[in-house]
Amino acid sequence: TEPAPVHTADASDPFSTDPPRHPALIVNNPKPFNAETPPSLMMDNFRTPNDLFFVRNHLPVPKTDVEKHRLRVEGLGVGEGKEVDLSVAELKKKYKEHYVTSVVQCGGNRRADMQKFKKVAGLMWEGYAISNAKWTGVRLRDILIDLGVDPADERIKHVHLEGADVDPTGKPYGASIPFEKAMSPEVIIAYQMNDEDIPADHGYPLRCIVPGVVGARQVKWLTLVRLSDVESPSHFQQKDYRAFSPSVQHGEELDWNSVPSIQDYPIQSAFCLPASGTTVDRDSATSLPFGPVVLAEYSFPKDGTVDVAGYAWSGGGRGIIRVEVSPDGGETWYSAEMEQDPDQNQDKMWAWTLFRASIPIPEGAQTMDLVVKATDRSYNTQPETAAGIWNIRGLLHNAWHHVEVKIRG
Amino acid sequence: TEPAPVHTADASDPFSTDPPRHPALIVNNPKPFNAETPPSLMMDNFRTPNDLFFVRNHLPVPKTDVEKHRLRVEGLGVGEGKEVDLSVAELKKKYKEHYVTSVVQCGGNRRADMQKFKKVAGLMWEGYAISNAKWTGVRLRDILIDLGVDPADERIKHVHLEGADVDPTGKPYGASIPFEKAMSPEVIIAYQMNDEDIPADHGYPLRCIVPGVVGARQVKWLTLVRLSDVESPSHFQQKDYRAFSPSVQHGEELDWNSVPSIQDYPIQSAFCLPASGTTVDRDSATSLPFGPVVLAEYSFPKDGTVDVAGYAWSGGGRGIIRVEVSPDGGETWYSAEMEQDPDQNQDKMWAWTLFRASIPIPEGAQTMDLVVKATDRSYNTQPETAAGIWNIRGLLHNAWHHVEVKIRG
Ligand SMILES: [Mo]
Ligand SMILES: [Mo]
Repeated sequence: TEPAPVHTADASDPFSTDPPRHPALIVNNPKPFNAETPPSLMMDNFRTPNDLFFVRNHLPVPKTDVEKHRLRVEGLGVGEGKEVDLSVAELKKKYKEHYVTSVVQCGGNRRADMQKFKKVAGLMWEGYAISNAKWTGVRLRDILIDLGVDPADERIKHVHLEGADVDPTGKPYGASIPFEKAMSPEVIIAYQMNDEDIPADHGYPLRCIVPGVVGARQVKWLTLVRLSDVESPSHFQQKDYRAFSPSVQHGEELDWNSVPSIQDYPIQSAFCLPASGTTVDRDSATSLPFGPVVLAEYSFPKDGTVDVAGYAWSGGGRGIIRVEVSPDGGETWYSAEMEQDPDQNQDKMWAWTLFRASIPIPEGAQTMDLVVKATDRSYNTQPETAAGIWNIRGLLHNAWHHVEVKIRG
Repeated sequence: TEPAPVHTADASDPFSTDPPRHPALIVNNPKPFNAETPPSLMMDNFRTPNDLFFVRNHLPVPKTDVEKHRLRVEGLGVGEGKEVDLSVAELKKKYKEHYVTSVVQCGGNRRADMQKFKKVAGLMWEGYAISNAKWTGVRLRDILIDLGVDPADERIKHVHLEGADVDPTGKPYGASIPFEKAMSPEVIIAYQMNDEDIPADHGYPLRCIVPGVVGARQVKWLTLVRLSDVESPSHFQQKDYRAFSPSVQHGEELDWNSVPSIQDYPIQSAFCLPASGTTVDRDSATSLPFGPVVLAEYSFPKDGTVDVAGYAWSGGGRGIIRVEVSPDGGETWYSAEMEQDPDQNQDKMWAWTLFRASIPIPEGAQTMDLVVKATDRSYNTQPETAAGIWNIRGLLHNAWHHVEVKIRG
């Protein structure tokens, strides 16, 4: 039989109604759809365009109808009979609109790089399962306070989030975030992404945006907010997205309760350009444009330097205070130029930092081991290698990122 | 002339009225007095006894009188004419008492270890310029709110703190913390340390305790709290306690504004026992007691393992989620047992974590390169070496801590 065209419903294929995607996305897995932003395009925009934003789906994209979609809010502190089922129109009408420019990064970003150190299990993301967008919506805290929830209610410890995407048994995707985080002003129920309706792949019509936190908690196609004394019982909260110790080996029985669920992301950075294996001419090139500018004509400068560019970001709102790049595997360092969101400060930096540097090509060098690593507002830095962070699921890989270039001439 | 006895005032020596100290403290500098807790005693108590708490003085210990001492509170949001000069008795009477068990760690802790990588400038702290105590006092936020300060006042960005200790020109020690931090419930104006009056060396009669933040901001002998739109102009805020990039070399002109003042500490851990260079008998030893127990009789177990113990801590309230130790320089890891404050949770962990592990002695090994590193609630980890964090002032050294032991038998 012929494969069904992707946009025709097929009862035997729950993915057959998935939306069309930009052909430039680098597909890691077609069903469920998982794809990275092409690194060569990442530096073109401070806010990643919607159709180039990386996609991480755990399940088929649900068919949602903005008229019929409801967000149920219930649980501890809301009180029985006080639960609400908000339509998107009600949400927009009842609460003040806010926006935040914020990163979503997959917990498995750079897993392929960790795999080079030692075998790990999961989707082999290179380093581009991360994007940055402007999200517009209403504050979760405004909804909860409107429903009578007391921010000081000590019974409430966690807020469960569920999506309209379901597994073959009908169980929805679920996750939870700490109550204190849920009450923070940066957490919003978004209906727009970069000033457009959120696309189907990114949570249409509602997504919970939890700045500073791993992507897996930023639930798409949001249908439910539940206040609770415990974490979400969802598989994705309990049996996934927890990074074990490097002492835990493949084949061992896993004690999931021995490690906390990932929430805030650690410090991260990686090169987008040049690609590993690139050959650089010592003296026939032009400069690399920086930041939200077209890098399609990326090439190298005439004066014996290599231009490099990429991203850095840290969780918990910890701003990037510097990005350093090395031409020689980490022996010597140069501070990179940084582009940051002018509306955010170092203590509440939810957006990423783009960086750029021109690194002198060492005399006589035939190859260069380029390295990047960043430092955040708490002076946390990235480990040199995976030696201390390797974990069987390959989560949260944030070791120094290396790119090798060859020098010609 | 004979040296003056240390407790007799001597007009020519501003340090002559410094208090007596415990003889076990390891003195780095006598005037101003700077001394570490002996590592062999650190594991005896979860809360470091006052007389063994490390001492970091920048200036002579001021002579303070609890009856005459005043805490002035002034600045933006307080309003002219509304400033107050609170006595210690008024402070205790007017505001509710709170306590927090919290670490103080010097920004230069482990500088001697960073120096092994490359020369740095400063007091050569080994790894024990860190201690943990119970601090009792009143919340800074309660005082400020009582004076009419609006927590949402966007003009107020920083809170200056000054001590009664002065330099030869009469200028007091000063620092500042972000306003948002100052308004957090964990920040207290303490008058007790481990249920006793704060000793002279640690700030008698008042010290500002800023949990999760570097020691230099936790101002002792506190006399002034000033709300401001800018950071403290103090030397210690502006020209010290900022960790430069490893690209900045000795002798360069320093652009202090290019790096933010240190506030939250990054993730840290170190062994207290065994000491580097210790010889371990393969088969004539007993087990290491763990935690707040006497370790004076520290020795090794019979069954071919080495017992190790130490501390781990991270800034910003980020709890330690695990401590891992390695017998072979980081090739293999074992998870350590941890002791934590049962009253604190992983998102508000101001106290340290003590750890202990029994590491098998590898067959045929004649030496062991023991390593420890920790992971915090944001999954931040320590860098392997100083390669990416080295800075000319040797601040915030938090690379993996190594201890070498020799195996006999
Ligand atoms: Mo993810
Ligand atoms: Mo310090």
